[in-house]
Amino acid sequence: MTLNACLTPFAESLRESLFDDADAPTALPAAQRIEFDHILHLRHAGETRCRLRAELVGAEGAPLVAVLGGISADRHLAANGACAAPGWWEAQVGEGRPVDTARLRVLSFDWLGADGGLDVPIDTADQADALLAVLDHLAIPRIEVLVGASYGAMVGLQFAARFPERIGELVALSGAHRPHPYASAWRAIQRKIVALGQLQCADAQGVALARQLAMLSYRAPEEFADRFAAEATVENGRVRVAAEDYLDSCGLRYAQKWQATAFLRLSESIDLHRVEASAIRIPLSLLAVEGDRLAPPEEIYALAEGCAADCRVRVLRSKYGHDAFLKEVDAIGEVLADALQDLVCREEDRA
Amino acid sequence: MTLNACLTPFAESLRESLFDDADAPTALPAAQRIEFDHILHLRHAGETRCRLRAELVGAEGAPLVAVLGGISADRHLAANGACAAPGWWEAQVGEGRPVDTARLRVLSFDWLGADGGLDVPIDTADQADALLAVLDHLAIPRIEVLVGASYGAMVGLQFAARFPERIGELVALSGAHRPHPYASAWRAIQRKIVALGQLQCADAQGVALARQLAMLSYRAPEEFADRFAAEATVENGRVRVAAEDYLDSCGLRYAQKWQATAFLRLSESIDLHRVEASAIRIPLSLLAVEGDRLAPPEEIYALAEGCAADCRVRVLRSKYGHDAFLKEVDAIGEVLADALQDLVCREEDRA
Repeated sequence: MTLNACLTPFAESLRESLFDDADAPTALPAAQRIEFDHILHLRHAGETRCRLRAELVGAEGAPLVAVLGGISADRHLAANGACAAPGWWEAQVGEGRPVDTARLRVLSFDWLGADGGLDVPIDTADQADALLAVLDHLAIPRIEVLVGASYGAMVGLQFAARFPERIGELVALSGAHRPHPYASAWRAIQRKIVALGQLQCADAQGVALARQLAMLSYRAPEEFADRFAAEATVENGRVRVAAEDYLDSCGLRYAQKWQATAFLRLSESIDLHRVEASAIRIPLSLLAVEGDRLAPPEEIYALAEGCAADCRVRVLRSKYGHDAFLKEVDAIGEVLADALQDLVCREEDRA
Repeated sequence: MTLNACLTPFAESLRESLFDDADAPTALPAAQRIEFDHILHLRHAGETRCRLRAELVGAEGAPLVAVLGGISADRHLAANGACAAPGWWEAQVGEGRPVDTARLRVLSFDWLGADGGLDVPIDTADQADALLAVLDHLAIPRIEVLVGASYGAMVGLQFAARFPERIGELVALSGAHRPHPYASAWRAIQRKIVALGQLQCADAQGVALARQLAMLSYRAPEEFADRFAAEATVENGRVRVAAEDYLDSCGLRYAQKWQATAFLRLSESIDLHRVEASAIRIPLSLLAVEGDRLAPPEEIYALAEGCAADCRVRVLRSKYGHDAFLKEVDAIGEVLADALQDLVCREEDRA
């Protein structure tokens, strides 16, 4: 049985009813799903009761790794004993995978705002506070390594700057300490598209179209040149280009799962993100992707130059641009395995 | 008195009534504005009566240069005796400028579809046919040099492929023989934005937002990084990024002048464009701009490699990306002066 790997919190109640613990294959790693209310002091909205949702996989006592993805990702990284549906990062997380759930304890959480219930500006510092609340709730003293990709890298940087005593090392893939002004403009237009849809109560249509534009920013021209070289056609008196079927279907799938409010608030959140590079004092491992139009390598180099810690930068060339962390499975797997090697060895020595 | 340099055909009747021949300063070069109906065989709509509008500046007998700009450009390149309002390419066209109206006869025309009266697919071959009709109407046997920028370069390539006996040389700036699939996707989304606006009879709002997205494709991240580095702000509970005022004003100004139909049909026209490089057998001078996201240098190199003629390629690095032909006045002036030097010298010898 295959379920979509990117279910959002709205769809998760369905997923949980389909895959409760009793039905899960015994081979899947032990896991718990946590959900609780907590009052956070949001930067732009003050004291706010928020629903926090997390997932914790692997044996108690193993070194704790937190894994955070893009704004569309959720707490469910990979199939586990608490939820057998595929997660959004099956390629990297699981037994024998680079983020090895047999040797590590792996934590993730749903972004504040992802459930559409929080219609206020949210920023990455709020997300870092939410992660801290999850750690405290689970009585986890410290994240050994936080692996963050895209938005997860930004939240990881905020967490490192705010709570350095609660994190050992940060692996930040395709994310920087500030948004690039061109990428911000690109996102602002996506939000205006959603607003144009909302004007006529065509919310889903606006969200779908905004997602299409977002897809262009996640990918790079090389991939489009490979996949969509066919000539434009004329259908019913209108010109249609080769990428339109693909983009339409990306938009539709997304709009079935995401509410306008969640899209808008998480999109805004990227543009509110800003961390002083010099405030980062824990070891950093950064990945920059040539061709990434959202987190261009220059920005990641600026972060590396400005931070006050040991910092390693790797550069990857990928036709997938910003989405390389999802699409370049082997190269990203190497980065992760390398970053987690010491932890895994330490755990093997201990065991 | 200053009038907007980018008036479209809709606004030109107003401009003509403000600046008729009698009022024009005597120093402006002699010019005629031509307007006539002609039946064209449009590729996707068959025999169609079209209104053609052209402007011809300079002395009879001087070598004829045709100058064509982007989809938003029109026939009015620079102030002249028939229309004293500033044109869209004052920096390059006029007495003593690189396209020297004292030594050359300079022709331009309004794009088919720009007046919003033609709601059918239009392609660059149709535009080339329209240019031929203008030449025939004016009894001009041959264009010595055609200077085309952006869409004008595409139309120039079509003209060269279709009517090689009517053109001596083509200078094509920031345009290639085919659209890049990524740029086509970008335009398709602009058209979908217009359609979303039209759904609720908010045509102008859709056109304005589509133009904002188009602006991102015309420019490059470097310029945005220089101009819009300020942090995002929260206004009335919404996040606003630094480039939004600029983009909003670009969109508004554009939507005041352009109808949805004209925008859609000219945008489509770029995606229908395709010329076999090997069909180009006249001398070519190409300009590629590093950082151009619509006509990336690789595409222009592919054209240079595939064409069956003498071809010279220059490469310019510009933070203005595709808009370099408008913004890099000195560098573009050199390219034009160089390309037109032989013509000007020939004319001086004759005089």
